[in-house]
Amino acid sequence: MESLVKRIQAEGRSLKGGVLKVDSFINHQLDPNLMMEVGKEFVRLFGHLPINKIVTIEASGIAPAIMTGYLMQVRTVFIKKKQPNTLENVYASSVHSFTREQDYEVCINANFLTPDDHILFIDDFLAYGNTARCMIDLAHQSGAIIEGMGFCIEKTFQKGGEYLTEQGINFHSLACVTSLEHEHISVCEEPKSRFK
Amino acid sequence: MESLVKRIQAEGRSLKGGVLKVDSFINHQLDPNLMMEVGKEFVRLFGHLPINKIVTIEASGIAPAIMTGYLMQVRTVFIKKKQPNTLENVYASSVHSFTREQDYEVCINANFLTPDDHILFIDDFLAYGNTARCMIDLAHQSGAIIEGMGFCIEKTFQKGGEYLTEQGINFHSLACVTSLEHEHISVCEEPKSRFK
Repeated sequence: MESLVKRIQAEGRSLKGGVLKVDSFINHQLDPNLMMEVGKEFVRLFGHLPINKIVTIEASGIAPAIMTGYLMQVRTVFIKKKQPNTLENVYASSVHSFTREQDYEVCINANFLTPDDHILFIDDFLAYGNTARCMIDLAHQSGAIIEGMGFCIEKTFQKGGEYLTEQGINFHSLACVTSLEHEHISVCEEPKSRFK
Repeated sequence: MESLVKRIQAEGRSLKGGVLKVDSFINHQLDPNLMMEVGKEFVRLFGHLPINKIVTIEASGIAPAIMTGYLMQVRTVFIKKKQPNTLENVYASSVHSFTREQDYEVCINANFLTPDDHILFIDDFLAYGNTARCMIDLAHQSGAIIEGMGFCIEKTFQKGGEYLTEQGINFHSLACVTSLEHEHISVCEEPKSRFK
């Protein structure tokens, strides 16, 4: 997605330890037009599949997910950070946080992920594939079918894409960051070779 | 907003301790059409004001906020739960969580809340007014001007509305829950008396 690539080039910042800062338009301050454009792109890539639900994970996945859900006219669920008091019948999993260097527990109400669900999973980043791994775990527990996964930005050098390919997941990333070395951001559109 | 009132009557559940569960359409599973309708209603109520930014707080405020931001064509920022490692120049505040019975720290990048900003604050719930109080604190710190606050659901018996009236804040709630006693949800549209 050319406009996203340009935006990353213009406003992104490469921080120490492979962190890409895009908090002026993706994961703190949001550009609603960009989010709508992202949604349209996910519809173009996945709209032919029998998707009946979008799943994402709080918090940065919610904006692109709700736009995609609106355009596809399907319900949208966000996986929550676990709060034992308020949720009863849940599937739980854990996610390793790259930025915080620790695991955290997440969950989804079992009523909102069932064997009838054909899921498109949406998230802002694909890095090591930790949130995707969590989605695969929750789908296994619930019997839901993953039709595809869509990410705004993939950091290809962190190998989450290789993991998803091994798992046979149909996934697309709207911008691929191939290196953040020496404070320089190398970013391009998704290679055509990934489209089957 | 009649459709929201009906939805609360149909799908809401009254839990112990004044908790209203609306996780099938507002704060876990989301109905994107309802979120868009909520956005349109906020535009109707606040669209005449010189708003140049929507502010919300993660995670449940993001969906109604991004829809409103899209319709108003303004940037949308979500206040983040504090992670000292990744944010540098921030305004910080604390929020008392009613469900968890504890305070948690939140912050916003100082670049995204400035004296040039005329804010519409959006959140899913107005209960005791704790997130609104946090927004007022962050606005004071930054010099941003609060033009209004919009909430999907207000629990009128928890007095957040009285606090905002005392503070002189222009606010609206799309559905007002007046009681959750005896597991019964009493809910209505916002009283016309609140409109000046």
